[in-house]
Amino acid sequence: MGAVDRATLEKLMDAVALGQITPDEAAQRLERLPFVDLRYAKVDTHRQLRTGLPEVVYAPGKSTEQIRGIVRALMAEPGGPIIVTRASREVYDAVRVVAKAAIYNELGRTIVARAEIGAPIGSVGVVTAGTSDLPVAEEAASTLEAATVKVDRISDVGVAGLHRLLSVSERLRDADALIVAAGMEGALPSLVGGMVSCPVIAVPTSVGYGSSFGGLAALLAMLNSCAPGIAVVNIDNGFGAAALAVRLLRARAA
Amino acid sequence: MGAVDRATLEKLMDAVALGQITPDEAAQRLERLPFVDLRYAKVDTHRQLRTGLPEVVYAPGKSTEQIRGIVRALMAEPGGPIIVTRASREVYDAVRVVAKAAIYNELGRTIVARAEIGAPIGSVGVVTAGTSDLPVAEEAASTLEAATVKVDRISDVGVAGLHRLLSVSERLRDADALIVAAGMEGALPSLVGGMVSCPVIAVPTSVGYGSSFGGLAALLAMLNSCAPGIAVVNIDNGFGAAALAVRLLRARAA
Amino acid sequence: MGAVDRATLEKLMDAVALGQITPDEAAQRLERLPFVDLRYAKVDTHRQLRTGLPEVVYAPGKSTEQIRGIVRALMAEPGGPIIVTRASREVYDAVRVVAKAAIYNELGRTIVARAEIGAPIGSVGVVTAGTSDLPVAEEAASTLEAATVKVDRISDVGVAGLHRLLSVSERLRDADALIVAAGMEGALPSLVGGMVSCPVIAVPTSVGYGSSFGGLAALLAMLNSCAPGIAVVNIDNGFGAAALAVRLLRARAA
Amino acid sequence: MGAVDRATLEKLMDAVALGQITPDEAAQRLERLPFVDLRYAKVDTHRQLRTGLPEVVYAPGKSTEQIRGIVRALMAEPGGPIIVTRASREVYDAVRVVAKAAIYNELGRTIVARAEIGAPIGSVGVVTAGTSDLPVAEEAASTLEAATVKVDRISDVGVAGLHRLLSVSERLRDADALIVAAGMEGALPSLVGGMVSCPVIAVPTSVGYGSSFGGLAALLAMLNSCAPGIAVVNIDNGFGAAALAVRLLRARAA
Amino acid sequence: MGAVDRATLEKLMDAVALGQITPDEAAQRLERLPFVDLRYAKVDTHRQLRTGLPEVVYAPGKSTEQIRGIVRALMAEPGGPIIVTRASREVYDAVRVVAKAAIYNELGRTIVARAEIGAPIGSVGVVTAGTSDLPVAEEAASTLEAATVKVDRISDVGVAGLHRLLSVSERLRDADALIVAAGMEGALPSLVGGMVSCPVIAVPTSVGYGSSFGGLAALLAMLNSCAPGIAVVNIDNGFGAAALAVRLLRARAA
Amino acid sequence: MGAVDRATLEKLMDAVALGQITPDEAAQRLERLPFVDLRYAKVDTHRQLRTGLPEVVYAPGKSTEQIRGIVRALMAEPGGPIIVTRASREVYDAVRVVAKAAIYNELGRTIVARAEIGAPIGSVGVVTAGTSDLPVAEEAASTLEAATVKVDRISDVGVAGLHRLLSVSERLRDADALIVAAGMEGALPSLVGGMVSCPVIAVPTSVGYGSSFGGLAALLAMLNSCAPGIAVVNIDNGFGAAALAVRLLRARAA
Amino acid sequence: MGAVDRATLEKLMDAVALGQITPDEAAQRLERLPFVDLRYAKVDTHRQLRTGLPEVVYAPGKSTEQIRGIVRALMAEPGGPIIVTRASREVYDAVRVVAKAAIYNELGRTIVARAEIGAPIGSVGVVTAGTSDLPVAEEAASTLEAATVKVDRISDVGVAGLHRLLSVSERLRDADALIVAAGMEGALPSLVGGMVSCPVIAVPTSVGYGSSFGGLAALLAMLNSCAPGIAVVNIDNGFGAAALAVRLLRARAA
Amino acid sequence: MGAVDRATLEKLMDAVALGQITPDEAAQRLERLPFVDLRYAKVDTHRQLRTGLPEVVYAPGKSTEQIRGIVRALMAEPGGPIIVTRASREVYDAVRVVAKAAIYNELGRTIVARAEIGAPIGSVGVVTAGTSDLPVAEEAASTLEAATVKVDRISDVGVAGLHRLLSVSERLRDADALIVAAGMEGALPSLVGGMVSCPVIAVPTSVGYGSSFGGLAALLAMLNSCAPGIAVVNIDNGFGAAALAVRLLRARAA
Repeated sequence: MGAVDRATLEKLMDAVALGQITPDEAAQRLERLPFVDLRYAKVDTHRQLRTGLPEVVYAPGKSTEQIRGIVRALMAEPGGPIIVTRASREVYDAVRVVAKAAIYNELGRTIVARAEIGAPIGSVGVVTAGTSDLPVAEEAASTLEAATVKVDRISDVGVAGLHRLLSVSERLRDADALIVAAGMEGALPSLVGGMVSCPVIAVPTSVGYGSSFGGLAALLAMLNSCAPGIAVVNIDNGFGAAALAVRLLRARAA
Repeated sequence: MGAVDRATLEKLMDAVALGQITPDEAAQRLERLPFVDLRYAKVDTHRQLRTGLPEVVYAPGKSTEQIRGIVRALMAEPGGPIIVTRASREVYDAVRVVAKAAIYNELGRTIVARAEIGAPIGSVGVVTAGTSDLPVAEEAASTLEAATVKVDRISDVGVAGLHRLLSVSERLRDADALIVAAGMEGALPSLVGGMVSCPVIAVPTSVGYGSSFGGLAALLAMLNSCAPGIAVVNIDNGFGAAALAVRLLRARAA
Repeated sequence: MGAVDRATLEKLMDAVALGQITPDEAAQRLERLPFVDLRYAKVDTHRQLRTGLPEVVYAPGKSTEQIRGIVRALMAEPGGPIIVTRASREVYDAVRVVAKAAIYNELGRTIVARAEIGAPIGSVGVVTAGTSDLPVAEEAASTLEAATVKVDRISDVGVAGLHRLLSVSERLRDADALIVAAGMEGALPSLVGGMVSCPVIAVPTSVGYGSSFGGLAALLAMLNSCAPGIAVVNIDNGFGAAALAVRLLRARAA
Repeated sequence: MGAVDRATLEKLMDAVALGQITPDEAAQRLERLPFVDLRYAKVDTHRQLRTGLPEVVYAPGKSTEQIRGIVRALMAEPGGPIIVTRASREVYDAVRVVAKAAIYNELGRTIVARAEIGAPIGSVGVVTAGTSDLPVAEEAASTLEAATVKVDRISDVGVAGLHRLLSVSERLRDADALIVAAGMEGALPSLVGGMVSCPVIAVPTSVGYGSSFGGLAALLAMLNSCAPGIAVVNIDNGFGAAALAVRLLRARAA
Repeated sequence: MGAVDRATLEKLMDAVALGQITPDEAAQRLERLPFVDLRYAKVDTHRQLRTGLPEVVYAPGKSTEQIRGIVRALMAEPGGPIIVTRASREVYDAVRVVAKAAIYNELGRTIVARAEIGAPIGSVGVVTAGTSDLPVAEEAASTLEAATVKVDRISDVGVAGLHRLLSVSERLRDADALIVAAGMEGALPSLVGGMVSCPVIAVPTSVGYGSSFGGLAALLAMLNSCAPGIAVVNIDNGFGAAALAVRLLRARAA
Repeated sequence: MGAVDRATLEKLMDAVALGQITPDEAAQRLERLPFVDLRYAKVDTHRQLRTGLPEVVYAPGKSTEQIRGIVRALMAEPGGPIIVTRASREVYDAVRVVAKAAIYNELGRTIVARAEIGAPIGSVGVVTAGTSDLPVAEEAASTLEAATVKVDRISDVGVAGLHRLLSVSERLRDADALIVAAGMEGALPSLVGGMVSCPVIAVPTSVGYGSSFGGLAALLAMLNSCAPGIAVVNIDNGFGAAALAVRLLRARAA
Repeated sequence: MGAVDRATLEKLMDAVALGQITPDEAAQRLERLPFVDLRYAKVDTHRQLRTGLPEVVYAPGKSTEQIRGIVRALMAEPGGPIIVTRASREVYDAVRVVAKAAIYNELGRTIVARAEIGAPIGSVGVVTAGTSDLPVAEEAASTLEAATVKVDRISDVGVAGLHRLLSVSERLRDADALIVAAGMEGALPSLVGGMVSCPVIAVPTSVGYGSSFGGLAALLAMLNSCAPGIAVVNIDNGFGAAALAVRLLRARAA
Repeated sequence: MGAVDRATLEKLMDAVALGQITPDEAAQRLERLPFVDLRYAKVDTHRQLRTGLPEVVYAPGKSTEQIRGIVRALMAEPGGPIIVTRASREVYDAVRVVAKAAIYNELGRTIVARAEIGAPIGSVGVVTAGTSDLPVAEEAASTLEAATVKVDRISDVGVAGLHRLLSVSERLRDADALIVAAGMEGALPSLVGGMVSCPVIAVPTSVGYGSSFGGLAALLAMLNSCAPGIAVVNIDNGFGAAALAVRLLRARAA
């Protein structure tokens, strides 16, 4: 914490030195940290300030009531976008009670509340190998858009029909970063990585059957890409890919 | 056996019916089958007749003496090419004693004795993603050449530099079949499979590190290829890929 | 693309040289590639010309509407057979609206539209180890038949009753290629591979329990076959096996 | 212990009841159990009486001194055969100091001391798929012979050359039990299991490469055999297979 | 086939020699092998004669109609017991139509038709570590009983309460063979194997959670048992364990 | 058993020596061991005395009737707390019939009957990384409370928001032992282990997706913790973690 | 750190409040943390104060020079025992230059410097299943002894000879905690866990072959133990097991 | 290629239109692609222009001669830095013959030739959890430095001593991007990811033993990080991490 926020620490020290607060108060204050305790969750209301990323609520394994409670607590504090991932429409209905303007992306199964407004901080191409990879791509796209990133959706350009990929090469090169979602043999990021100089974020998807083992084949392929400098995230983790892209663009803007 | 060689069976029946041999002799003859028993190995001297493939001796786990003994037995019978795979030069020296004209392929670590001579039965492109895949490719190439297949070696055309692959597209399309060896993410067969209509035989290689897990990543990628109709063989199994290609070409010639 | 279709490229060059089209038009035309963009899918209407294979739509993970849309787009272009795999009857009902003559194979769960007509390009034996392997075998068989391949179904000849296999040895030897589907220990392709000289395509099936691990045991067995020259495809991938067989036969016919 | 040796327990009770020994002595005696404590090993000198099996010392991970010490302790007690497995010749030299008549099987890497003498308790066929499986087979064979089991070595009858297997079918049916060692795809036990009615003990061997994963492919194949009633033991565990066979034959003799 | 049944072969030869049948008829007869072809299954009506085991029908993946058809075909031929495993009550209702006297074991989910009658051929203890292992044990027990094997059910003697196991030690020693079913850490066969001299057949069960990985933990434990001579079968494979026990007892009786 | 309870053994010996019981009675009594045989389960009514732990009934795979029967048998004997884990409310309703005062923990899915009463034997912090880990934590907490352990629930202090963890550091240091439940990357126990000197019990949870492989990622992380002296239990095994904590505290109290 | 050492923090606050140091100095001091920076290592000289554990240096992957440097840095600060694990004798010779009194345990491959002296803080039984588990056990034992824990070595009491285990049951029950090292099927901790009430720490060892997969079989068995309350540590991690035991005993002493 | 370099394509079209070259020449030129064919390798001399990354030669599996040949070919073309990874000193000696000014990083085992000179394009923190992770970190660092990236080495700040990490928090926040290398439980990237807003690139290392499975545990942990937006690369792939960082910084500079 001192670690996290050194300026605060120094101010606190000054206050103690100036007798504005007692040492004991200072020690206590160091423990009054920026989160709201819901008993079942410690909502981290300051994380966005710290990491620059949208606040995410992963829906599976949480009750609809818990999700609504967490979103309500986040909405009660000032801050940036809030995203619920892997959300059913039923969860959306519950969340809308506490976040009226929240938007639901049916295909990506994401709820976005309090999306940021403003000039785009950059442009990201969201590329899929096949139609079945679209839900993962949409999870990424809606996260990006919530953070004022311009999204170029480039769909169904898998490696078995190379001309489809070559036909979009300009769009690929125009992006500040690329998110590439692919299942089955997961070869698309390697190709894209050899065609562009910008950062490429590979998302293996669980699309496939038999020995794809729920996305493991694609994950291993991406980790072993012969194109250097490919970033890999977890299977089906569209949100994570988008969060990484936001980190890149924010760093660039800084 | 009856199953394997019905014509022989029928002739045997005739001979019994004609009283040329006794029933008992017939039953015994049915058990005098076409192999030479070396006690540590039953050398299958007729396999080539049955499957049309070169006779292979896999060197690891066998003593140099055993390998020489097996080759000697095979040479003693009429037949086609004999191949020793994963052979050290020391093994080669031992084999040359019993098969004077045997040739050693240093890179592919194969010994070929009694290579067939004659017009090529077809042409196979042996394609590699990178320099490190060459030993596996050479194991395939020397097997093919022993069976009078013309080989076009197309090296180092991995997917990270797509223009290298595109520059050889005509050679790819000119082949009767393609053997594609790749390690790391194993994406090359998918690309090639989308470019040509001939059979593509994918050989994962153990080239790579970390999560390539000795070729497993490439193997899974190839099995999950989005290009339909890719044949996969075992990791590093250059001989097996070539044997499959020979089956194809022989079937075609038939 | 130039890579894929060099003749077209050369013609285009001629047209530019002759002033028939402007250089700029030529560059643009190079990007007007042969697919129809449905936004959720880039339907590759020329793939058959390029690879000689039927067009396949893998149903799982796609909505009924998406499948119908893709089939409609494929039907709108001239071309060969279209196959939907792993299709429920409900999908079939939707597809029939846009492809009236489409046929449904209940056991293989395939829909075939615009099956080719003409003299058979060859004969393939589709062999199963047990009754439970039939759905995979039928996926292969209906794909083959759509491409005018004659199919010989040889069922339930697993290795535990060797005489069943031996009784069909002649049918095995009469085929131009064999597709062998087996689950459990996956031993059947090894045996068949030792009995015939034609190409053998092994399909592991997810039939089994306990340590069969959804077909992994059979897959590993087939990859490690001691019979040389066995082609392996993904678990339960009947379509892929058939596509490989079509490649073989087309190459042979060429 | 009461569990292990109830007759002894009853005698002890009688002795207490008769006042021949004090209760305290009895309790102490119950803890003076039949093993020799070498500090680094508790040599179980009575195991053979309890389980009817040879005493085995697994050499890897033990120093030559420890192995010699264990063998010496075992030799100091009356009992049956003693076997050291995976033993180098160096270990053999050390063991011979304390067990003069010990025999070394170079191929199987076993040392046998105090082999039993007497009429054979039965006959076991030790079958191998290939030459490379012989070391595992010899470990089994020398264990069997040490326990007065007659061994019929049937080598190199793998499934790719079916006629080799069929030619030995009578020898297979003549055995009281069969041990079948195979690497690669591990199919041989399934075939043998369908041909005979006696117990079949399958030993996967680590012979193979690539995706054989050190014998895993063969192990899984054997566990998933479609031939019912196949016993499987650990990879390369020739001793274990033989021990199981001895249990069978002893039970039969009982 | 000749291989399988040499006596038959010799008689056939005699018949040919005596002119009782023509050579051509003989060759044809060799191919008229003992199974009934249902198109979806080749019912092996003579397997019992060949292997001495009950005929088994594994229900999952087969339609109720197919199962009934297979049982009907088996009932139409003379022979021994017929067992359907993993059968629902619905399957039972269908089977009863063609096999009136069939018995259903609810816990073991087995249907037994035409159980053998006669003096027991031996006695097998069926041992379970916990209550949840009972279904697997019952599958084994009903198979054994169908083959006139006396069964001693010894339940819930897992290793965490050693006194429970010790209390049944005499019953363990009284059996001709033991089947030991255990999930979780799968330690029970090792203990039992150290207590008795008869053959021990270990069946890993899928009982457990977390890192038991569906029985894999127990399977590995049993394969690695430090008690020599333990036979392992597939996870949850109660039938397989019983089939192995029947092989043992038949061999003993022979 | 003699082994388990030596004092009892000595008394028995005295009784035999004094002629109070016959040797035969003694031997029989040694086998009349402290459990109740329900035919489907041997209820171990004395385990608590032997190991100091609550008696646990794992619900999955047992019928409601079996669970009620086991609880009834346990309640019929004197003893300590009885816990049913992974229990549905339906199971609770059945158990309440035989254990009126049983309590149900909805979140942890545990039923506790006959909870101990008395001064706490110590205090355990039950720490979770995220909200989704709470069911596992509650299984642990209710087990602890049944054994008179004071529980401090410390929720949602995962490593991505370090200040949340630092804010509870005093509570962590005040505990006698800590149970730390975490899914995903499973890093929390390593951090906690570096902050405190008391025993840390790590419970991987199956929370996560993609390559978390049902808790495997967290399990491996915890086993490989760079903080020395972390105890790991099975995935989702809240009961096991609590049982270990009770062992620690009992040992401490002893 | 504030988190780690609150008393220090409060004192620092007091000093600032009293004007004894400036706020800036305070902030800087908070960052002057208790470790020595060797550039290749930040030696954590206060960890023992914080966690109560010996300081450990894991030798593999570090150069002899680095190890000596780290030990020298640790010796230069006051503190408790220092342990180097997996150390060759060559490393020992280098360490002795900077830590004259260091002791080398050949079997356990540990170097102990500055072992603690004083009354034992408790007694731990270090139990092994077999002779080959001794190196792991000795790593644990020498760690324990360095922290003034009394060690009772109980060797070679594996489950295949149950009487060996029962003969030491009293010693097992006399310990404050037990460390149980076992390879192969890893069953010993389950048995011991059912016999005693004290904490049981299970250490899987890499002893075994074939499908033991380097200790994985034993690890899974221990995690799935049916005896509740078993702590598991990493494969071959004798030091970790001892560190956990020290945590237990220290907590008990506290 | 047209795809890769559209500007070139348009110029070529202009030249054809202007009659400067013939159409045939144009088509041929499209195939004269920017690489040098060494027969064993197609050296991609223009990749740096295309992707902005240093040219890498992965040494293992290549002969010293091949490496020297590849470096010579690369040096003969204009271009940026050339890096050989996993290079022994022997390889270095060979490379120096063709690249006099090449530098060897002993710890990181990298050779850098023709390092770029100029103002830093940004600053990257290279963070390690422990001393044993340094080789991987140095591979990354020397790659970065070759591309004029400023490197801040932050070593040995693993999670078991949290204060070490907190003490460097300012340096972490000052970087444009962070590369975090960790083995064992791989938790460090999660912590760092929660402390900073810049991109975090996680490199699992193969440091660890037992169930770390060569870095698999760390890899899975990093893929499952609860801190959003972590980029993961292959195990031990320091070069890949640096290449990704260069992509980021180049994108930023663009």
